[in-house]
Amino acid sequence: MKFLRYGAPGAEKPAIVDADGKIRDLSAHVSDLSGAALSPDALAKLGALDAKSLPLVEGSPRLGPCVAGTGKFICIGLNYSDHAAETGATVPPEPIIFMKASSAIVGPNDDVVIPRGSEKTDWEVELGVVIGKTAKYVSEDDALDYVAGYCLTNDVSERAFQAERSGQWTKGKSCDTFGPLGPWLVTKDEIPDPQNLGMWLTVNGEKMQDGSSKTMVYGVKFLVSYLSQFMSLHPGDVISTGTPPGVGLGMKPPRFLKAGDVVELGIEGLGSQKQTFVADI
Amino acid sequence: MKFLRYGAPGAEKPAIVDADGKIRDLSAHVSDLSGAALSPDALAKLGALDAKSLPLVEGSPRLGPCVAGTGKFICIGLNYSDHAAETGATVPPEPIIFMKASSAIVGPNDDVVIPRGSEKTDWEVELGVVIGKTAKYVSEDDALDYVAGYCLTNDVSERAFQAERSGQWTKGKSCDTFGPLGPWLVTKDEIPDPQNLGMWLTVNGEKMQDGSSKTMVYGVKFLVSYLSQFMSLHPGDVISTGTPPGVGLGMKPPRFLKAGDVVELGIEGLGSQKQTFVADI
Repeated sequence: MKFLRYGAPGAEKPAIVDADGKIRDLSAHVSDLSGAALSPDALAKLGALDAKSLPLVEGSPRLGPCVAGTGKFICIGLNYSDHAAETGATVPPEPIIFMKASSAIVGPNDDVVIPRGSEKTDWEVELGVVIGKTAKYVSEDDALDYVAGYCLTNDVSERAFQAERSGQWTKGKSCDTFGPLGPWLVTKDEIPDPQNLGMWLTVNGEKMQDGSSKTMVYGVKFLVSYLSQFMSLHPGDVISTGTPPGVGLGMKPPRFLKAGDVVELGIEGLGSQKQTFVADI
Repeated sequence: MKFLRYGAPGAEKPAIVDADGKIRDLSAHVSDLSGAALSPDALAKLGALDAKSLPLVEGSPRLGPCVAGTGKFICIGLNYSDHAAETGATVPPEPIIFMKASSAIVGPNDDVVIPRGSEKTDWEVELGVVIGKTAKYVSEDDALDYVAGYCLTNDVSERAFQAERSGQWTKGKSCDTFGPLGPWLVTKDEIPDPQNLGMWLTVNGEKMQDGSSKTMVYGVKFLVSYLSQFMSLHPGDVISTGTPPGVGLGMKPPRFLKAGDVVELGIEGLGSQKQTFVADI
């Protein structure tokens, strides 16, 4: 199933995509795609409804982030060997984890605001994992039992804030609007192998990233298990699993985003996003 | 005023401390100490109630974290020159910021769980700043307009997870129960100078930290303004402003916490905390 949230920012309603690709409202069945509603069992019940009997959402509404109540937005650094190489780093012996502020989350096609003083705003197409049940000390074998599904994320990054403004990457990762999520929360049954998904990103129509999750160093099962050794993962938490090669920082010379640039990105089975980058006036 | 939350975890009720130091329930006037209820105006209205007319809370209930709805728990690294020195680091040219998972937050006297595999669990008494109104690009002069008040925090840290397990400190800062907050949210009128507060911490009764916020490098006003240049700060967000000297990592030889150890800490005007450290069985 493909779940989504539509409507004005802060007032999104839950919905599901029917067999014809149309949006069907789920408000009568669930208040939001958050908390207990994200458990695999709860999602399966929503998926078992007769979608054609649900209210049709006409037109092309604004899409919100595909999950609500995200307490933690955990990102994995340098998790593609070829991306690590392009940034001049080596693959770490254990996953690098950092936090993106949950206040950075926006809808998949919302404008992304380049913060004041930014000269190095960059893109990163990533596979997002949405937690569906509280996970603590879970094994790699059991890890997927705690996953609601997957979504597309753009881990927008300000490289100077991240690396040139005194330690810890979160400073360049947490700016408002730097976390587009969606369009859909796609359940696990539709993504039998998350480690073999094509992924791409363009800037103004020019292909920048063209990779696959098969070159991910630490895979989804490992990451869920690994993170759960350090902290409880809760429903709605999102793990963004790192980006393949082709970011602006890795180019010679480096290339960064300016107001008016349009970024489009997608992952096989997870849909696509389109963002206009705008100045923070 | 001193506000607090009491009751079972996840079911805390809001309260205020009256002139005799007794707890008075605020449930009839505010649903929780979160969101809009944290604005300086809203807190002033609660403070203007006749406390003696509010329901008295008998006994010594469990105290919860003194603020709810914390979306971001932002910590400042190496923000006391003498603490930087004890850890072998120098004071950074700009504040180091990192995130502590909001899922780490617990009440001020709750047990702190030493995670499995931990050998270097450490303590850090810190002055916490609680945001009361959304702040973005605010000046240093205006910064306190956006602050609800202050609280005591223990930035519990696992040093091996933080520094020896592949990059980014959040890994050693975000474990469940690593974020005791409280006992009180103390409004600004009671803390006219947050840069001149005595602060201390003991382990099993032995004094380990004995400092003052006057040796803080980047002060409260600066930090609120600085952080708001990178991201919006929202009501309930907490900024933990760094620790003075005396952490276990800085001792020769280093000293870390084991199950059964009791940590007590306090800051002038903000009350005290007492935690028993327990194994994660």
